[in-house]
Amino acid sequence: MLNDMIAAISTPIGKGGVALIRVSGNGCHTAVEKIFFPISKKRLTDYSPRFAVYGEIRDARSLIDTAIVTRFSSPHSFTGEDMVEISCHGGYVVSSMVLEAVLSLGIRMAEAGEFTRRAFINDKLSLTEAEAIGDVLSAVSREGVRLSSSQASGVLSARMKEITDKLTSLISSIYAYIDYPDEDLEDVDDETLGITLDGLIGECETLLSTYRAGNAITHGIPTVIVGKPNVGKSSLFNSLIREDRAIVTDIPGTTRDMLEYTADVKGVTLRLTDTAGLRESTEDAIEEMGMNIARARLFSPETSLVLALFDLSRELDGDDERLIEALEGVTDKTVIPVYTKCDLETRLDVDAVEGALGKGVTVSSRDGQGLEALEERIFSAFIGEELPQPESPMLTGVRQRSVVERGLDGLRQAKAELETGFKDMTGMTLESALASLLEVDARGVGEHIVDEIFSKFCVGK
Amino acid sequence: MLNDMIAAISTPIGKGGVALIRVSGNGCHTAVEKIFFPISKKRLTDYSPRFAVYGEIRDARSLIDTAIVTRFSSPHSFTGEDMVEISCHGGYVVSSMVLEAVLSLGIRMAEAGEFTRRAFINDKLSLTEAEAIGDVLSAVSREGVRLSSSQASGVLSARMKEITDKLTSLISSIYAYIDYPDEDLEDVDDETLGITLDGLIGECETLLSTYRAGNAITHGIPTVIVGKPNVGKSSLFNSLIREDRAIVTDIPGTTRDMLEYTADVKGVTLRLTDTAGLRESTEDAIEEMGMNIARARLFSPETSLVLALFDLSRELDGDDERLIEALEGVTDKTVIPVYTKCDLETRLDVDAVEGALGKGVTVSSRDGQGLEALEERIFSAFIGEELPQPESPMLTGVRQRSVVERGLDGLRQAKAELETGFKDMTGMTLESALASLLEVDARGVGEHIVDEIFSKFCVGK
Repeated sequence: MLNDMIAAISTPIGKGGVALIRVSGNGCHTAVEKIFFPISKKRLTDYSPRFAVYGEIRDARSLIDTAIVTRFSSPHSFTGEDMVEISCHGGYVVSSMVLEAVLSLGIRMAEAGEFTRRAFINDKLSLTEAEAIGDVLSAVSREGVRLSSSQASGVLSARMKEITDKLTSLISSIYAYIDYPDEDLEDVDDETLGITLDGLIGECETLLSTYRAGNAITHGIPTVIVGKPNVGKSSLFNSLIREDRAIVTDIPGTTRDMLEYTADVKGVTLRLTDTAGLRESTEDAIEEMGMNIARARLFSPETSLVLALFDLSRELDGDDERLIEALEGVTDKTVIPVYTKCDLETRLDVDAVEGALGKGVTVSSRDGQGLEALEERIFSAFIGEELPQPESPMLTGVRQRSVVERGLDGLRQAKAELETGFKDMTGMTLESALASLLEVDARGVGEHIVDEIFSKFCVGK
Repeated sequence: MLNDMIAAISTPIGKGGVALIRVSGNGCHTAVEKIFFPISKKRLTDYSPRFAVYGEIRDARSLIDTAIVTRFSSPHSFTGEDMVEISCHGGYVVSSMVLEAVLSLGIRMAEAGEFTRRAFINDKLSLTEAEAIGDVLSAVSREGVRLSSSQASGVLSARMKEITDKLTSLISSIYAYIDYPDEDLEDVDDETLGITLDGLIGECETLLSTYRAGNAITHGIPTVIVGKPNVGKSSLFNSLIREDRAIVTDIPGTTRDMLEYTADVKGVTLRLTDTAGLRESTEDAIEEMGMNIARARLFSPETSLVLALFDLSRELDGDDERLIEALEGVTDKTVIPVYTKCDLETRLDVDAVEGALGKGVTVSSRDGQGLEALEERIFSAFIGEELPQPESPMLTGVRQRSVVERGLDGLRQAKAELETGFKDMTGMTLESALASLLEVDARGVGEHIVDEIFSKFCVGK
């Protein structure tokens, strides 16, 4: 069905002046002429592609709307196919009627992500670029937008291509040497081979090291606040989400409805899901439920950061000890002890906490002292010294990381094989490493993975 | 401040692939070049106006987004000024950042309706056309869209111009005759004058007669269902709003949240506000509150249609009589008696009801019989025999109706003065009638009325 004509409203539904309807597929330019009539009395295709034409959308009964229509000719369009963009009025009924008029031409509704999928299939976008467009759309922070837009413009694809080109050339010289030993080909001695391989391993390691920051900047840091009753979880929650810094919380239908709150930490977003009702309720009333939910989230693989609260003014008790015990077993998350109630006399055995969980931060709920130190701890744990340049290639998603990891494993294995003298084996291992690294940009990736990726997009994108 | 540069996101906020940012005002083409960089390395103004240019939106720190940017040159734009349309990605944060980049150029946020207001001031739109665009955006029915789009394309403006041109020419010939009686000008005898005046009166009457249907189609019919406890209000409510026909109820943030439901009656929308909880609650639980609220709405000037329910199986009681008494005094609404429980033996004194309120309709809540007859009664009371052609000029708003009424009053008064021989007076009265009729399209209308009208638009329109 590729290249059949598809259409969708690409703008959100709601109150607004303008809606954009996108149409893509062979024949869509002439199809749309049956419902679109330029004010000039000319036809849409009398105008050059990419020229914005003002006219009327009509069906058999009457005028439906006036619109600005622009056609794009293959391959110079988002999908790479012939496309038409109809910019009509944004009311719900009127935009639905314009879409209905389009669909009446034998054009079908696009599925979620189908426009981007076609762009990928028609080589207008690499897979990481397509993923990054999804990240641009769902970004919750400004730094997330900057990073995702740069990845969408191809910086990661370019980096991957450099690495895989080098690896391809290495593999071909190994095979040439093995297959034609007498041909006096350019010498590939083991030492040079080892050095080149080490270089590639280093490049992949560097790339992998960008994942933690890349993912945190792009998707935010899922965070949970835990601690015994009355330790000050609500206060910390409220200090972190200070309204003026949480740029997404005011959008209807997004975070506030899901009780997810965001906190800006030096440009990086903490995602705090208020399942425990920390924000609105008094602490006492929700403690029991709150603790249970917090415990569930503590062990969720989604959670990346745990802020573990301890009351400085009280001695370590059973609750604290159980919490420490639970957290000692956690290896896939960053745990930061946070000490509260510093204005009272210190009774807590701080050394016992830090012996198990590492150095903590003292935060005063009264005047916010220590909050900045906490934010710096979080920032340095996830990002490092400073925000990376958005234009540098970074891994941002789990899928990308896991295929680069697989590629890196292959390179290391090949290095070991080389050192033990199995050069034939080295070539095969490098080939499989190459396959993994090519998969980052879906060169050779299976259809079902592509399906999976694009199904996360919204309709009209 | 006219012509200063303004900008806004014209698409709704929410999940969607694309956002459109509009910029209008002198100098905006070169201003936008400071943040928009075509992929071709050319400048935006190197391209012709109305050519869709692909490129990058950047600020000092980094790439923000890729976008398609089209510039429109005065006067060939929506506002009549130089304009730029930026079609960028639709995420909340990314579109906000693109807007921020635009605003950083010394361009200010547009006020609600400011683009349309500028179109009006720059003579790109008449006032009725601008009002009709507002109606297109907020339309809740397909017929409403069709009618409003046609009015937005100028059919009412054209009709008004015909009428006011005739009246202007009549007035000038009267004054010429009075001021230069000896000039042997084209004769304006009283009889011809009277005939012309009658013609104009007839044209205004015809136009006024379109208001009831025009307003009902454009804005829907605000309807209230009243009757004593257990008479069957919930059943009728639910029969009318059958989900499959109510096209607006599924939009988040619109009618369902406000508990307003819509019912499609042969293409016209009944607006039923479920303040009494008719839909979800059992009738008993909400009766008292329901009755009070229904009574308040009954006397609201907003309400156009009252469906008064009577139980056929019970004799007229005090509740019924109080309802009849209340409704007899209602002159500005259509009242239709609706008889329920027709499957039981009839005990109601139907003549007593119809003597006071006119003929009723019997509706069976069990099988829906009679519902169609009721819908036909409603349709013929508001629309007539059939839906008007959307392209015919129609008055759709209260403001339009009241100025045409004032104009018509003036014409009738002038006719009376003419018949009593006060031709001088006639000229002056006609001048004031003309002023009213010109006001329909705001030719001479005060600034504060224009403010009032455009303040109802959303930002970005």
